[in-house]
Amino acid sequence: MAKNLEISILFDFYGDMLTDKQRNMVEYYYNDDLSLAEIAENEGITRQGVRDSIKRAESQLLDMEDRLGLARRFNEMKSGFESIRNAANNIREYNGRYGRSRDIEECAVRILDISRHLCEL
Amino acid sequence: MAKNLEISILFDFYGDMLTDKQRNMVEYYYNDDLSLAEIAENEGITRQGVRDSIKRAESQLLDMEDRLGLARRFNEMKSGFESIRNAANNIREYNGRYGRSRDIEECAVRILDISRHLCEL
Repeated sequence: MAKNLEISILFDFYGDMLTDKQRNMVEYYYNDDLSLAEIAENEGITRQGVRDSIKRAESQLLDMEDRLGLARRFNEMKSGFESIRNAANNIREYNGRYGRSRDIEECAVRILDISRHLCEL
Repeated sequence: MAKNLEISILFDFYGDMLTDKQRNMVEYYYNDDLSLAEIAENEGITRQGVRDSIKRAESQLLDMEDRLGLARRFNEMKSGFESIRNAANNIREYNGRYGRSRDIEECAVRILDISRHLCEL
């Protein structure tokens, strides 16, 4: 069973919709990087049981993203913030070189602060 | 049964997780502003049946937001975009008044375009 990187991202978004048991399995497998056999031993269930549980959780996460597309929307927003930060940094550079307006500098710093903050939401 | 404005917003985010039947009821009630009695007549079910169906859908939507908080995160992002747009407009104004740098103008317009686009996602 190949670990699907996308699953970690979807788990951050939709993980709280899973059952406690599913959430634990996904965390052991994806975040703590345990093997199916290790999880099975720790939990006192079969390797196949662990596998089924993770597979079910994965389909639920993929299905939620398929329906809601919120991870995709968030990611687009994040890449937009990056472009905004680049533009704000360019403004600071141009302004520092030529105009040296304190107001412009302040607004550009404000834009940088807000987009940094929003990226962490 | 008071219409809960928050429900319309949550419906936009999580509506696709509801069953087709629930989704229809919520749409008739919240988006098309039909009464419970009108929906009951159109659907050929009892008024109480409609009411129960909408109530169930409402709790599911509220529960999803409670767990995932994605509507809240999106809304914070949107208000952040507004502040970014204000700052970018201020930069254009200051720059137009004093510096008149074409590079700064272009970057500020770029920031406005990106944040407008992201707000529509």
